[in-house]
Amino acid sequence: MSKTKKQLVFEAAAELFMEKGYLAASMREIAKKVGLEQASSLYNHLKSKEEVLIKICLENAERFINGIAAVEQTSSTPIEKLKALIHLHISIATEDRTSVTVFNDEWRHLSEPHLNDFLTKRKDYENRFKKIIESGIASGDFKAVDPTIALYTILTSIRWIHYWYKPGRSQSVVDLERDVFVLLVEGLKN
Amino acid sequence: MSKTKKQLVFEAAAELFMEKGYLAASMREIAKKVGLEQASSLYNHLKSKEEVLIKICLENAERFINGIAAVEQTSSTPIEKLKALIHLHISIATEDRTSVTVFNDEWRHLSEPHLNDFLTKRKDYENRFKKIIESGIASGDFKAVDPTIALYTILTSIRWIHYWYKPGRSQSVVDLERDVFVLLVEGLKN
Repeated sequence: MSKTKKQLVFEAAAELFMEKGYLAASMREIAKKVGLEQASSLYNHLKSKEEVLIKICLENAERFINGIAAVEQTSSTPIEKLKALIHLHISIATEDRTSVTVFNDEWRHLSEPHLNDFLTKRKDYENRFKKIIESGIASGDFKAVDPTIALYTILTSIRWIHYWYKPGRSQSVVDLERDVFVLLVEGLKN
Repeated sequence: MSKTKKQLVFEAAAELFMEKGYLAASMREIAKKVGLEQASSLYNHLKSKEEVLIKICLENAERFINGIAAVEQTSSTPIEKLKALIHLHISIATEDRTSVTVFNDEWRHLSEPHLNDFLTKRKDYENRFKKIIESGIASGDFKAVDPTIALYTILTSIRWIHYWYKPGRSQSVVDLERDVFVLLVEGLKN
């Protein structure tokens, strides 16, 4: 199925946000990127650039929430659950780099009530990630580290993979995942 | 020795950059923060807000370069060198949070030739950090991971500690360092 004009407009806007940042991107440039001569024709497809930002931020927040919900429902060990969460971040970061970049770098520019909605989802995700770490500490699978320190040491690293890892370079996604498991999971194992 | 007016102006500007971002901060607000009624009096102490950004970015780049140079000169094992680098990041992030936040978040706004100078220093630091990882892999102290993946997995995590760790919370800096060693060094050990 070919993409609708609306989809193309949203993709162009997302790319522009990634290239120059949300604040610096203008409706005029979005129009130019999709070949609309007049910025005014763009308004048939897009009310404001924030519409794109809201869609990206909330859709990605949902992807992470749905991903962690699926992990929680398995009967895997805490080690396997942690690996599944790292896999979730690596998959999303490598399969949809534009969207993850905008999501991670630009959510601060959401207006209310979207910002509050986003922050609530983000906090919920972090709390559930921390619960998985805590359950591994409680079961003796993980060392007795501080769960908050473990959460953010791991999460910071995997949240920003898109900053330095570009698919198609010398390291494959398989290499990436294998080595990140070594670096972020092996040390925690009891 | 009490601080000079110029030092107070620089500190106020740095705090303002941290609070609202470099782009959004104005000379008028810097003046207000140090109690100068007229923005024009500020120009006796500060030519432009970029003067502060340049100072912060280059001073911090120097701190990291000097820190890694000191580590390189020791005869420690690669494991001890890696721990010393993590200690360097944690020390700077916890002792001078304002400056590290501006350094990490706002360097993109440097103009040339400062941006190029900064990026050269940053790349030099990353290359030297990677060499320490490579030497540990070569000596068999570290597992045979990809050095680039190891570099950025570790560096991303420790570069952004100031984002989530606030000194004075329930975790002490000693706890932080101990657990970050477990999380980022133990897995790499062979």
